[in-house]
Amino acid sequence: MNKKLLGVMVTLVGVTVYAGGAAAQDKPEVLVKQRQAVMTLQGKYFGPLQGMAQGKIPYNAEIVARNAAYLNVLDRMPWDGFVPSTKDMKSRALPAVFADPAKFKKAQEQLQEAVVKLVEVKSGNEGAAKAAITEVGKACGSCHDNFRQKN
Amino acid sequence: MNKKLLGVMVTLVGVTVYAGGAAAQDKPEVLVKQRQAVMTLQGKYFGPLQGMAQGKIPYNAEIVARNAAYLNVLDRMPWDGFVPSTKDMKSRALPAVFADPAKFKKAQEQLQEAVVKLVEVKSGNEGAAKAAITEVGKACGSCHDNFRQKN
Repeated sequence: MNKKLLGVMVTLVGVTVYAGGAAAQDKPEVLVKQRQAVMTLQGKYFGPLQGMAQGKIPYNAEIVARNAAYLNVLDRMPWDGFVPSTKDMKSRALPAVFADPAKFKKAQEQLQEAVVKLVEVKSGNEGAAKAAITEVGKACGSCHDNFRQKN
Repeated sequence: MNKKLLGVMVTLVGVTVYAGGAAAQDKPEVLVKQRQAVMTLQGKYFGPLQGMAQGKIPYNAEIVARNAAYLNVLDRMPWDGFVPSTKDMKSRALPAVFADPAKFKKAQEQLQEAVVKLVEVKSGNEGAAKAAITEVGKACGSCHDNFRQKN
């Protein structure tokens, strides 16, 4: 993906919008379900990439490019579901999500930056792509370590 | 979004990839969870647009543009989860999904085409955008009528 396109996509999908009413009407249980749905899909599209980076499945540049583009949109989606009204809902979100929103926001941005770097790497460059995939995995893991309950 | 960008995005996100092993390893219950996650998110991002088209919430061009771009990626994601191995899993998918895959595929394409048209409409043009949103809603409803169990 060329940088111009990437820039436009990031601008487009990264725009922060506060709906004047739509989001506010959402029930806590709906918000939790929606943010968990994003995590499920991030797993769907990151899992194979991690498997490739770890040499467990064959490298496939086409899948890397597609999944990176998907992740670059998905990683914008879950965060507006982590609002205080959901604090007491059953989920694996740790209290730190709500107690330290600045740190949580930084963790989100680290993931987004790592995914943008993965998109920018030509997926045909297997070594660079695998390194970028590993960085995305670290961003996932770092956020989970601090903000997600262990199983 | 300009047409060139749109074309690239569609090409990028629409590429059909059969992973040599990754997807094949997925358990039916995981596939069902993943495809349901996409439906949940399509609801998250289409719901407000439908509310706007129906005059229930104020029109917001920025949200329309963002959600349309999200939907244009999400509507590529669920279909590889509707594989025969999931046929007997508990879900609202009707037998027609598996009995008439050609018709099901056509319904997917109708949704994708309606979303592309929504993306192509300038969201600043409220009338045209609302009409395009209504067409997306019809594509959702038509597929649900034929392939999803009533509640």
